[in-house]
Amino acid sequence: MQENDIHNAVNELMDQSPDSDSQQIVIEQFEQDNSPVELALLLESLPLTARLETWSQISDSIKVAVLVEMRSDASEAIIGTLDEQHLLAMFTGIEADTLLELQDVLPDHLIEDVLARMDEEQKQRYSIAQQFEDDEVGHWCDHQPLVVPAKTKIKVMTRLLRRSIPAYGNVVFLVDNRGNWQGAVRFNKLFGADPLLRVSELVEEDFPTLNAKDDIYIAADKVAQSEESALPVITDGGLLIGRLDMGLAYRLQSERAESQIMATAGLDENEDLFSTVRKSTKNRAIWLGVNLLTAFLASWFIGLFEATLQQVVALAVLMPIVASMGGVAGSQTLTLIVRGLALGQISRANLKPLLTKEVKVGALNGVLWALVIGIITGYWFSSIMLGLVIGLAIVANIISAALAGIFVPVVLEKFKIDPALSGSVILTTVTDITGFVVFLGLGTLLLL
Amino acid sequence: MQENDIHNAVNELMDQSPDSDSQQIVIEQFEQDNSPVELALLLESLPLTARLETWSQISDSIKVAVLVEMRSDASEAIIGTLDEQHLLAMFTGIEADTLLELQDVLPDHLIEDVLARMDEEQKQRYSIAQQFEDDEVGHWCDHQPLVVPAKTKIKVMTRLLRRSIPAYGNVVFLVDNRGNWQGAVRFNKLFGADPLLRVSELVEEDFPTLNAKDDIYIAADKVAQSEESALPVITDGGLLIGRLDMGLAYRLQSERAESQIMATAGLDENEDLFSTVRKSTKNRAIWLGVNLLTAFLASWFIGLFEATLQQVVALAVLMPIVASMGGVAGSQTLTLIVRGLALGQISRANLKPLLTKEVKVGALNGVLWALVIGIITGYWFSSIMLGLVIGLAIVANIISAALAGIFVPVVLEKFKIDPALSGSVILTTVTDITGFVVFLGLGTLLLL
Repeated sequence: MQENDIHNAVNELMDQSPDSDSQQIVIEQFEQDNSPVELALLLESLPLTARLETWSQISDSIKVAVLVEMRSDASEAIIGTLDEQHLLAMFTGIEADTLLELQDVLPDHLIEDVLARMDEEQKQRYSIAQQFEDDEVGHWCDHQPLVVPAKTKIKVMTRLLRRSIPAYGNVVFLVDNRGNWQGAVRFNKLFGADPLLRVSELVEEDFPTLNAKDDIYIAADKVAQSEESALPVITDGGLLIGRLDMGLAYRLQSERAESQIMATAGLDENEDLFSTVRKSTKNRAIWLGVNLLTAFLASWFIGLFEATLQQVVALAVLMPIVASMGGVAGSQTLTLIVRGLALGQISRANLKPLLTKEVKVGALNGVLWALVIGIITGYWFSSIMLGLVIGLAIVANIISAALAGIFVPVVLEKFKIDPALSGSVILTTVTDITGFVVFLGLGTLLLL
Repeated sequence: MQENDIHNAVNELMDQSPDSDSQQIVIEQFEQDNSPVELALLLESLPLTARLETWSQISDSIKVAVLVEMRSDASEAIIGTLDEQHLLAMFTGIEADTLLELQDVLPDHLIEDVLARMDEEQKQRYSIAQQFEDDEVGHWCDHQPLVVPAKTKIKVMTRLLRRSIPAYGNVVFLVDNRGNWQGAVRFNKLFGADPLLRVSELVEEDFPTLNAKDDIYIAADKVAQSEESALPVITDGGLLIGRLDMGLAYRLQSERAESQIMATAGLDENEDLFSTVRKSTKNRAIWLGVNLLTAFLASWFIGLFEATLQQVVALAVLMPIVASMGGVAGSQTLTLIVRGLALGQISRANLKPLLTKEVKVGALNGVLWALVIGIITGYWFSSIMLGLVIGLAIVANIISAALAGIFVPVVLEKFKIDPALSGSVILTTVTDITGFVVFLGLGTLLLL
């Protein structure tokens, strides 16, 4: 198992004295058994000092490949410690796509120096990629696809293919003499075809394509839906500039999933396990600040009922129950709706039946749990009225949570704000405040 | 855009009177422009009645394909309304892999009837798949891979390939006469090879493979890491039983991401947008119940300080701030650690430095926000002592949240409980209780 390899290496590297020969042996062995992906995971697993030591012992030939695989906060931490000359030596001669991957973690002047030493063909690929935004497939696709002029002879083509084919390759892309997209030829059509014909004889002109301005994640889904191993990336002008293969599509999708999960805690997907304390503190402070605003808002509403709380202190004891039941019920609806929005399933016409259903579910669960909570509370504080107050508050809060669970993400989406990121903070604020106000309000009316 | 297609279809279908001709036209048009995946999304977007009407207007030839693409709660809702004979007619003649996909949503006796009418080859594939658990790749892989006997002549092979190749195919798998794995031949090696040789001459024996008992999600990652379009699935005995291609790997990964996100709200990834109210209520009640237990626990702790709350009602007003700041800080650490655990990056030796770093980050953010909150509170309630109490409580709670954010997932993982599912409930319980006890405890000591 890959996991144990990393565990073992981390344990062995950290248990031994720095710079020892046995460390060198551990790293050599790990390098031999694992790919750059696992080496990147290993480096990310090490605290800064151990990470830098280990880095210096990795073979020079794979250092760039390892950096590419690392999350950017972690690779930046390494690059920041290396001197200019060392970096320039390491990056001289890399391909355009590698430079693009590392663009965000390299200092600008270094990028210029590397570009200055890059050969013309790669430089041109780099500059084409730069014409697209960094959420567009034209920027991130593989800019060196298997592509041949449409007039190529089949025998030339098969000789070329025999030598090597790119990963995920089972079609070849054809272009005219200006590099414009002509169509694709599947490898299997080449078997037994007349070697003297041109490959254009076998072309599939309606092979699916991606537009260079497509969003990268939507493009990844399109590749998967096409059931092709890779799709060509074409500019509006018809120029073929690259391809997006299933390998990259898979990585993109896994990146998206990771960033969605990290976003629920207000974190960036590039957050490093061993960031510096300073950087980490800064990254997290913002989200804590946003939360503080909402918490103060809720407190302010509670403060309106100070007099009531003074007389019926049991309300203070029970407040968190009402708020948290609303929060949970609301987040269930919210999660369902956010998924529906992401899948494009929520529209004007089905919003009303959806609302009806969620309110009914909320009402049923509200009544169910109101009974349970009301009875327990009634016994606990020997007060039927208190049980009644909390029961009513629970019903009201769970129903309003269902409404909020639908309206919050739908409205955010209308304003083009990602509901997966900010939906739950807003929802919890709504359910907290509703819960406190209804519960303490009913308490004021019925218990004083 | 695909999203708009679904939106438009939902709006048009729901705005028109049931069973009208114009509905039929909408569905025909949608069918023509879209794949079964989008048809499945469309059906899921419709309330039950409209869903059934639309279903009945879909062409019979694609109904099974659409069912396969639907989330199981939604397909079950359709299947449940169809009569026995109709179902049997629909499923007679389907392939083993299709039946496997629908296994969980079809009634047992129907599966038996369909199997009884299945041809021998498909039946055998089905029974091989059934030998594996439903989290193993042997169960879910494609059981009809492109495979040929190793002694096949190259000219026979190329003639076969010329006719058609499977999606994601650029290698062919070789077996001996008992069906045991021999290796793979890449298509490009066939170009220009002597047609009279056997394909075994071109075999790559060390082509990567999957074990049929591998976990499906780990297997999907392995396929992606191999950079092959598909890997063969082999039993312990060496039998080749199928392949996992990048298309299925992508679907599996996207399923996993969806289920992780749904799990954070205690929902199943199969939860249907338009489940019946009864089913939905039941699905969600459990999670609300779990939450209620933790909420009562927190309330019980607050109840210990009833006397204090009675005298200093401001404590009741401010309680939620302390608890929620701890919850947010803790969930940030938790999310980082859960990702680290999933990537296999957390081991015995790096736990201590990780703890040190997170506690330092917690201490810094704790002090920062304690100052802000302390000063605001001091002004709000005109009490320096109250400001001091809440400030100290914030520091203590954020630091203990950092500790809990590490220990809760690590301990859950030790006990083989998925920290992504239950981590955040346990964490919030810890931070709530710590927050309330420290805040009210300090209040009792310093304010009375």
